[in-house]
Amino acid sequence: MRIATRLTDRLRLRHPIISAPMGFAAGGALAGAVSTAGGLGLIGGGYGDSDWLAKEFKRSGNRPVGCGFITWSLARNPGLLDQALDRNPRAIFLSFGDPEPFASSVRAAGVPLICQVQSLDDARRALDVGADVVVAQGAEAGGHGEKRATFTFVPEVVDLVRQRGSDALVCAAGGVADGRGLAAALMLGADGVVMGSRFWASSEALVHPNLHRSALAASGDDTVRTSVMDIARRLDWPSRFTLRVRKNAFTESWHGHEADLLADIGTQSSRYRDAWANGDPATAAVMVGEAAGLIHDIEPAGDILLRTVSEAVAVLQNATSRLLVDDPLTPGH
Amino acid sequence: MRIATRLTDRLRLRHPIISAPMGFAAGGALAGAVSTAGGLGLIGGGYGDSDWLAKEFKRSGNRPVGCGFITWSLARNPGLLDQALDRNPRAIFLSFGDPEPFASSVRAAGVPLICQVQSLDDARRALDVGADVVVAQGAEAGGHGEKRATFTFVPEVVDLVRQRGSDALVCAAGGVADGRGLAAALMLGADGVVMGSRFWASSEALVHPNLHRSALAASGDDTVRTSVMDIARRLDWPSRFTLRVRKNAFTESWHGHEADLLADIGTQSSRYRDAWANGDPATAAVMVGEAAGLIHDIEPAGDILLRTVSEAVAVLQNATSRLLVDDPLTPGH
Repeated sequence: MRIATRLTDRLRLRHPIISAPMGFAAGGALAGAVSTAGGLGLIGGGYGDSDWLAKEFKRSGNRPVGCGFITWSLARNPGLLDQALDRNPRAIFLSFGDPEPFASSVRAAGVPLICQVQSLDDARRALDVGADVVVAQGAEAGGHGEKRATFTFVPEVVDLVRQRGSDALVCAAGGVADGRGLAAALMLGADGVVMGSRFWASSEALVHPNLHRSALAASGDDTVRTSVMDIARRLDWPSRFTLRVRKNAFTESWHGHEADLLADIGTQSSRYRDAWANGDPATAAVMVGEAAGLIHDIEPAGDILLRTVSEAVAVLQNATSRLLVDDPLTPGH
Repeated sequence: MRIATRLTDRLRLRHPIISAPMGFAAGGALAGAVSTAGGLGLIGGGYGDSDWLAKEFKRSGNRPVGCGFITWSLARNPGLLDQALDRNPRAIFLSFGDPEPFASSVRAAGVPLICQVQSLDDARRALDVGADVVVAQGAEAGGHGEKRATFTFVPEVVDLVRQRGSDALVCAAGGVADGRGLAAALMLGADGVVMGSRFWASSEALVHPNLHRSALAASGDDTVRTSVMDIARRLDWPSRFTLRVRKNAFTESWHGHEADLLADIGTQSSRYRDAWANGDPATAAVMVGEAAGLIHDIEPAGDILLRTVSEAVAVLQNATSRLLVDDPLTPGH
């Protein structure tokens, strides 16, 4: 059995699963593996390294992958979008900023536009610019995000899309790491899911093995949303967006003491850079979400994807066969 | 059709829905209406007013209701538990503190013990003291709560219970306000749900009509987790727990400026008290969660409960009949 939704129909996928275009981690090998398994794999365009992007598109081979960008960063280097569109991507995914300046090029190229949103205003904007897919991202997500929770944000965005009379699709992001999460997202009205942390913890992800090990040892309680990693990396993120990472010595030292970190930024940012290069999980960002507690192995992305689908099928079948009872809602009716 | 789970079996309910024992708002009329409709209605024991509790148990009539307590507050007035147990409650619900001092009395009375938890350590403690039901509460909930999100916390608690070899049940709380939420919670492995905001917005809830109106006008984006209402109410909440309310002029003034609020506490707390008495939504706590955006009417609790179940049935049936396709997971297999 498999799961077919409006997302699989319109994007011609076998499974309603998209891999998040995680900066640094989501290269061509990961995106290619996800697409080969029947999902939609996305290369993470990150902070605008054209050579990296070219290399990773090459690594994806001829597999049908898409590409994602950090929208506010893309605005500083818009040529990257043309570079991606030249590769005939299966979709362009934009998150964290106003998609308007890029939407018309994407649509003119006939490429599906996926806009990830963190608030209802973002969702309205995505519909205004003609997004084909609106991804409602909850704060439980690993990496960058904002405040809303997947559980309420997804149905609220679904209702908004319906009220607007739009036929845009809605996907859920944030906290989806297994078949239970996929099935739950479908119940909330989503047409599919975007999985980040679970694919970050895959064999194909470009992640230092020490950071992988650290994530596997974490529960969901061990993560925190913070700005301290972005300060240390000297990345100019808009203040509404924070980064969910595993708590470590660095977050324990600086989270809540951001002004002190800024005052010592020269030392701390070079310390951070070394830790990242060496894969030191006490300082470097272990970019995993609350779903860390549901992830217990580093596995090939294709295996993760197929197991997620088969678990979701089993969970759905079990619910209808075991939980639904042919009784009236109220006795005596 | 209805939905039968281990929760409906063990607690002899018709529907797997519990109404949250919300302080002040959840009196005997609300709890009674929920139990009459086939769920488990709980009276909110609040901050230890014995006369109020006696009155609300009386108002519940002979309907099979239970009672909930704020555990750290109950520890200061443990006689209230005996008062509740004397009423032969259908369950005792404890949240926000160590349940250990109370668990043995509840169990000795043969009353099911429901422990709401906000972290994995809390969940372990609930299992240690013999909870019959562990409620995994996400931060999207209205009123008091902590940090984890329902979407990841529920399956992580389900896995913990299984790893411990416990037969305790798990319910989801936080963000459940319609049939989509109930169905999603079941997919995540929950045996049932606790609904707060949705029953707070019911005809039977003891809520000023102005505050009801304010909640209906809010989206999920309009809420915030804060301590300022508890500071203004001079309630001695442990710092880990915050209150989710609709943002208003009071939260906008003081959230993030808690020391300033404390410095002016005499004036501000009497101002708060007046606003609460007058139902002024610009200052008083409108205790609704992120689910506010999914709530559009004040309705009788029984209608809310039955519609939630019938929506969940429809969502589940639709998913299995429309989304599951009898194809192999991978082509050619």
